[in-house]
Amino acid sequence: MAASEESLRKALAVKLSAVEAHGNAVRALKAAKASKPEIDAAIEALNNLKLEKSSIEKQLQAAVSGGDGDGALSREAFRQAAVNTLERRLFYIPSFKIYRGVAGLYDYGPPGCAVKSNVLAFWRQHFVLEENMLEVDCPCVTPEVVLKASGHVEKFTDLMVKDEKTGTCYRADHLLKDFCNEKLQKDLTISAEKAAELKHVLATLDDLSAEALGAKIKEYGITAPDTKNPLSDPYPFNLMFQTSIGPSGLSPGYMRPETAQGIFVNFKDLYYYNGNKLPFAAAQIGQAFRNEISPRQGLLRVREFTLAEIEHFVDPEDKSHPKYFEVAGLEFLMFPREEQMSGQSAKKICLGDAVSKGIVNNETLGYFIGRVYLFLTRLGIDKDRLRFRQHLANEMAHYAADCWDAEIECSYGWIECVGIADRSAYDLRAHSEKSGVPLVAAEKFSEPREVEKLVIAPVKKELGLAFKGNQKNVVEALEAMNEKEALEMKAALESKGEVEFYVCTLGKNVPIKKNMVSISKEKKKEHQRVFTPSVIEPSFGIGRIIYCLFEHSFYTRPSKAGDEQLNVFRFPPLVAPIKCTVFPLVQNQQYEDVAKVISKSLTAAGISHKIDITGTSIGKRYARTDELGVPFAITVDSTKDVTIRERDSKLQVRVSVEEAASVVKSVTDGHRTWEDVWEKFPHHTSGSADD
Amino acid sequence: MAASEESLRKALAVKLSAVEAHGNAVRALKAAKASKPEIDAAIEALNNLKLEKSSIEKQLQAAVSGGDGDGALSREAFRQAAVNTLERRLFYIPSFKIYRGVAGLYDYGPPGCAVKSNVLAFWRQHFVLEENMLEVDCPCVTPEVVLKASGHVEKFTDLMVKDEKTGTCYRADHLLKDFCNEKLQKDLTISAEKAAELKHVLATLDDLSAEALGAKIKEYGITAPDTKNPLSDPYPFNLMFQTSIGPSGLSPGYMRPETAQGIFVNFKDLYYYNGNKLPFAAAQIGQAFRNEISPRQGLLRVREFTLAEIEHFVDPEDKSHPKYFEVAGLEFLMFPREEQMSGQSAKKICLGDAVSKGIVNNETLGYFIGRVYLFLTRLGIDKDRLRFRQHLANEMAHYAADCWDAEIECSYGWIECVGIADRSAYDLRAHSEKSGVPLVAAEKFSEPREVEKLVIAPVKKELGLAFKGNQKNVVEALEAMNEKEALEMKAALESKGEVEFYVCTLGKNVPIKKNMVSISKEKKKEHQRVFTPSVIEPSFGIGRIIYCLFEHSFYTRPSKAGDEQLNVFRFPPLVAPIKCTVFPLVQNQQYEDVAKVISKSLTAAGISHKIDITGTSIGKRYARTDELGVPFAITVDSTKDVTIRERDSKLQVRVSVEEAASVVKSVTDGHRTWEDVWEKFPHHTSGSADD
Repeated sequence: MAASEESLRKALAVKLSAVEAHGNAVRALKAAKASKPEIDAAIEALNNLKLEKSSIEKQLQAAVSGGDGDGALSREAFRQAAVNTLERRLFYIPSFKIYRGVAGLYDYGPPGCAVKSNVLAFWRQHFVLEENMLEVDCPCVTPEVVLKASGHVEKFTDLMVKDEKTGTCYRADHLLKDFCNEKLQKDLTISAEKAAELKHVLATLDDLSAEALGAKIKEYGITAPDTKNPLSDPYPFNLMFQTSIGPSGLSPGYMRPETAQGIFVNFKDLYYYNGNKLPFAAAQIGQAFRNEISPRQGLLRVREFTLAEIEHFVDPEDKSHPKYFEVAGLEFLMFPREEQMSGQSAKKICLGDAVSKGIVNNETLGYFIGRVYLFLTRLGIDKDRLRFRQHLANEMAHYAADCWDAEIECSYGWIECVGIADRSAYDLRAHSEKSGVPLVAAEKFSEPREVEKLVIAPVKKELGLAFKGNQKNVVEALEAMNEKEALEMKAALESKGEVEFYVCTLGKNVPIKKNMVSISKEKKKEHQRVFTPSVIEPSFGIGRIIYCLFEHSFYTRPSKAGDEQLNVFRFPPLVAPIKCTVFPLVQNQQYEDVAKVISKSLTAAGISHKIDITGTSIGKRYARTDELGVPFAITVDSTKDVTIRERDSKLQVRVSVEEAASVVKSVTDGHRTWEDVWEKFPHHTSGSADD
Repeated sequence: MAASEESLRKALAVKLSAVEAHGNAVRALKAAKASKPEIDAAIEALNNLKLEKSSIEKQLQAAVSGGDGDGALSREAFRQAAVNTLERRLFYIPSFKIYRGVAGLYDYGPPGCAVKSNVLAFWRQHFVLEENMLEVDCPCVTPEVVLKASGHVEKFTDLMVKDEKTGTCYRADHLLKDFCNEKLQKDLTISAEKAAELKHVLATLDDLSAEALGAKIKEYGITAPDTKNPLSDPYPFNLMFQTSIGPSGLSPGYMRPETAQGIFVNFKDLYYYNGNKLPFAAAQIGQAFRNEISPRQGLLRVREFTLAEIEHFVDPEDKSHPKYFEVAGLEFLMFPREEQMSGQSAKKICLGDAVSKGIVNNETLGYFIGRVYLFLTRLGIDKDRLRFRQHLANEMAHYAADCWDAEIECSYGWIECVGIADRSAYDLRAHSEKSGVPLVAAEKFSEPREVEKLVIAPVKKELGLAFKGNQKNVVEALEAMNEKEALEMKAALESKGEVEFYVCTLGKNVPIKKNMVSISKEKKKEHQRVFTPSVIEPSFGIGRIIYCLFEHSFYTRPSKAGDEQLNVFRFPPLVAPIKCTVFPLVQNQQYEDVAKVISKSLTAAGISHKIDITGTSIGKRYARTDELGVPFAITVDSTKDVTIRERDSKLQVRVSVEEAASVVKSVTDGHRTWEDVWEKFPHHTSGSADD
């Protein structure tokens, strides 16, 4: 808890009891019929105390809502304005709206669909093409065996509680989270200790077992939000959409919860395709599905979404990256584990320093963090509202070497949009084991190498005599020792002749004597080293990135008359749904013909555009396209020259009809900037624009 | 049945009995111990008869396998060669292969995925951008109510039979089809009548009811193919993958069987987005799912596939198209209903003639047929193996106005790859009805129009007296009369005073008297016409198009030494997975540096390419990239000039290092042809290439 908040809570508690005491004192004076001046003085003192109390309350309110008194309110208003525009202009639409929709399912309407396809095209350019990745396209329908191996059948669950009377389902952690947040933000009278406890619950929410969650729900008396009915104990609900493959009903399948598994099961073929060489990356863009218990936060938590995932396979003994130097100089907001634990906030760090200091585990992970930063900022994500947060130890899977999330700040807070994880060899090992097909790579030595190998040879006869039916467990445990354990045992046996040895499958220590096992190091010639590659996985939630991009691009400005607020999306040309509009200034055949000529050149140049020949005022037409984030508008007001208007500056230049398309193309392709255009061409200063 | 086949079958029957008769005669001669010359002469005559019989058999075999004796065999061999190359080079991979796969699910590996993404990008360019379509992107998970309205829950079924002992499922029509084909092709002894019957079954297969199919299966004694066990009666199996939305288990959903419904349910918003104007088209690219009973034919019949669908909404009273003239002059293979019924084959027809003669129902339908032709042929589909086949009356849904399939011929026969249907107002009406939200358009009149409207006014009092409890049924039936029926009743009532009137909800005639209903025509002023738009739907099976493209692009040619067949895909640059490879001729730092410089310019120009610095011979490296259909290879054999080789002609030109990337870009972008390049640059004639 921030120091100021804690001291404010304490100060408030003091002030509250002072107000109570003084209130009692005033009542006592009145009862004792004290003199008027005495009573008046006491009342004034009480009023002053009340004022001080209010002031502390306001400060506390500001502190709990993020240090910005009207923050929550203005964030809410901003989101409303943005979402209204997005829905009204069909960037997205609640799916199956005429049937009252389905929670957590959204359509992209025309401009949203264009933004999405631009984002995906840039992703393909930035990652797949520039890095020569092997892109694959696997089905969504996935047989159970694959998702058993990956662990999803067993572990891809959320804890759910049911309204005991109506059967309505809720996510248990959401209810507890909402309770804690509400209490912290709305109930200013709770003690500093209670506040600290609630904050601790919020911080450890992801770690709570079903039992612990259930206990907290009981302790806090949390009930069903809609009915106030009592809730069931929490139990796990698998988030995969289940189905059945084929007509027999005997082959269970699921809609994939991520695209990654399709790549892992193809590792052997892809490695071969890559000439049996490491490192290489495979990539996949596609739909993924999560049957959320109770979707919320609009586009951020949905039941079907587009993922773009990269699996970069690398030798675990060499995680360097040949192009690392290209990103090592980048500097941006990072939020390492240490800073989170010590209550600091994210800070600007040079990526190269983070890698060399070991804050980021390895070069390849660092390389992808840098590439993700470039990808997101080039799309138009504000770099001051983008941070890379390292997973805390308790957030990471036990096998992961390191994990960083690209988080983007929007009106809902900091949202995880890209996960970049070093998953070590976990996935390939799991599928090797389950399928029986070895998913390994080999490093061929140019000449055979002499290697020292640890050899653990249990003496089965002796072990059999000593442990009878348990012999097998003991043998397996001995063979499973790593080098360090084995050498320690060897030393101990040589010095003491006997050691206690823990056999986990028996759940107890057994005594091992010197004659029961031989441990030695032997030299062998090897021609190659066979190993399971590590995988570094950048995984992009495309819908979340797009939603954050919408918020970061949205702003309002007053109309020229000042009587209304106009909405604008400042999309860079790269992602703008339409690059250019063409307007004949007035309805007239000549101008329309010119507009058609320009439209034809724009089509030939591959620039997506729209002609608007309605008789609406030019200002209204500008406002309409600003709402779609169209960066340029060509207005035809003569048959020789036309104006080109830039969306954000509203500045206009005059160019010839023949040049118009190529000028727009050069700016949207990034071959020159609007500033270059503004330098080169005569300015247009008619007062008629944007009326 | 083709005349020659029928006469051959008859001739064979004659010859077979002649052989039998002569065989008996020879045996009789031998038994009667006739003279050797006599017996020898009879045997010679028998042998001649047998030779004649064999000759007829061969001709018949040729006739049944499509007029081409070794056709089936060579088609099979061709397919094997193509499929081997496709699978070996990872164009596609049976999904989840390490777990022994799932029938009907395939991955696209790296080159296949690149081809697919090129095909989709061109589709977007050719249809969405050039026609200003409204592209949307809707979820695959679809609630039941939507698919009930569309009819899929009730009717999206195939008839299935089960092996009565093992429970294995088969598609009933497939078993019957296989039986008929096998009999026709392998059993040359069946009579011409029997052959005609089997052919009739094949022709009417799609029309057979469950009962008729079951009867045929019984009649022909068809058993389970794997076990020869008896089969169950056919029964319908719904082909949608079913699932459940949300945690309650109370909201059934399906994985969408087509993308079209997502567009229909959004009609109202899209119409508004388009400024409440018709016509406009919406488009969607996405996954669709069919839980096939027993998938076969590789990529052609799969359980999950990518569809690209267009719904063009148009005023049913005006199906003209402003850009129709652009395609009216095209001439290509069309197969109208008439020609199919009269046993002719597809023929070249000018599209404009087909529309003006009414063979194609309307201009808009014709326009899309033309655009589809251009799309497919530009991708590389052979125009001689592409035909547009009109649906027969029995193939079309009752509401459809007209329907044409773009069929592509491949080793599996003629495959439906694009359906282009005028579905009239069916879909919008169905969703209007089920959702209660009117999905209509309005034509505003510039000034109010006087329209004559038929008014049917049942006189409820009289009807009540006459029909008592049935009054409501009679009223509804009277109100439901169309204009013609109503006017006929009016005339009859005026002349006879009473008519018999059939009320279908009562299932009987009732007498209607003159005083029970008033029928009149009234004039009204109307300001607009409200109607349900017709929809014209071109629907593209992307995977099928890609598979046919693979076959049409594949060929083999002998290696230079002549000792092996090399595989080539002649993809146009537009769809080639990689546009260019860069080879240093020999392993050497200087050449590798030049290769890297060229690679950088290619990346900057957005040309997907690959460097191959392995020491393999240049001929082998060419062969490897020919197998991937890479159109151009740049070979670095000096630091100043390099060669560019074209894949199909194997011709090479010399260009400077600086120019190399821009030359390749100009040809792959279509700004010039290889012939232009061949004209302009010096030729390279080293004997070392393609060794």
